[in-house]
Amino acid sequence: MERELWILASASPRRRELLRQIGIEAKVQPAAVSEDTETKNPEEMVLELSSRKAEAAAALAPAGSLVLGADTVVSVDGMVLGKPASHEQAREMIRRLQGRTHQVYTGVTMIRRGETGNSGVSFAEKTDVTLFPMTEEEIQAYADSPEPMDKAGAYGIQGSFAAYVSGIRGDYGNVVGLPIGRVYQEWKRLKEEEAEEDD
Amino acid sequence: MERELWILASASPRRRELLRQIGIEAKVQPAAVSEDTETKNPEEMVLELSSRKAEAAAALAPAGSLVLGADTVVSVDGMVLGKPASHEQAREMIRRLQGRTHQVYTGVTMIRRGETGNSGVSFAEKTDVTLFPMTEEEIQAYADSPEPMDKAGAYGIQGSFAAYVSGIRGDYGNVVGLPIGRVYQEWKRLKEEEAEEDD
Repeated sequence: MERELWILASASPRRRELLRQIGIEAKVQPAAVSEDTETKNPEEMVLELSSRKAEAAAALAPAGSLVLGADTVVSVDGMVLGKPASHEQAREMIRRLQGRTHQVYTGVTMIRRGETGNSGVSFAEKTDVTLFPMTEEEIQAYADSPEPMDKAGAYGIQGSFAAYVSGIRGDYGNVVGLPIGRVYQEWKRLKEEEAEEDD
Repeated sequence: MERELWILASASPRRRELLRQIGIEAKVQPAAVSEDTETKNPEEMVLELSSRKAEAAAALAPAGSLVLGADTVVSVDGMVLGKPASHEQAREMIRRLQGRTHQVYTGVTMIRRGETGNSGVSFAEKTDVTLFPMTEEEIQAYADSPEPMDKAGAYGIQGSFAAYVSGIRGDYGNVVGLPIGRVYQEWKRLKEEEAEEDD
């Protein structure tokens, strides 16, 4: 991969690790933005928040850099689940998710900081996740561990929770926090457009 | 997870890592078995090979231990792809897989070594994997790297190849080499059966 400054507008170590997996070393520069939104639609919500994060970080980024903002939520029964505020809330979330299929949405905004203006792209990716039925004992043991606390929907598919996942439909990284396949493809497209403009 | 001796009849560091992810520390004891099979059917093939590996290791395992054998292949166009024998073969495999959907099969055999006889279970899990189209440059760069050489189908979804994966349908660990969700569920069932027998 070419040397190019990537700025990750997110404090999530998992997103940084996913970028690293495809050879991208990003500079982490989380943007402090409000996470309030008007919309209750998960796709609109993650698009709005990813773009808010990317724009805040882009305002401070050097020309030529690529800024990436992302936001992930879990959607079930028309409800959006963010990070649990307590272990009790984590239990409630996992009770709701076990034994069925829910949706994970990650919104991504990539902004190329130009000398004068910016260019970029926003997209939302959806992955269906199906869980095996869990016993109350399994729910409590997991919910009371530290794992769920910083994760949308109160679980991390990359950790011990994998024991309860029967399958997914869509991108795996998207459930962890960043759809890296799509990110790479959009970055490639962006580079091609920039190469054409330079001609 | 309870303390119990798990024996992994496979040298794959990835399978060991997947078990560790759900809290299982396995003793690695690869079984030297022939990988020749009569069948060309991917599901039958991985079942047969996983059972051959597990049985060979179980013969040497102490009573009470749980022995796990596994085998993974990629299936496309009615052909079964194992590990590539050369970088040239890796290129051919990736050329065939890019831009479309193929199947990954992992067969798993779990044997509980008893005082007198053994008990256990065998199953095969299928995951569909869809790849983005790849340029010839991308194919060559990946195929010529060390990554494809020890992997069925010549790619590792957990490495930089994730940039080319648009999505999967099924278990993610299954593509890496072990369907850990299913392994955990089958282990749970086995323990329940054993508890009933003890009553």
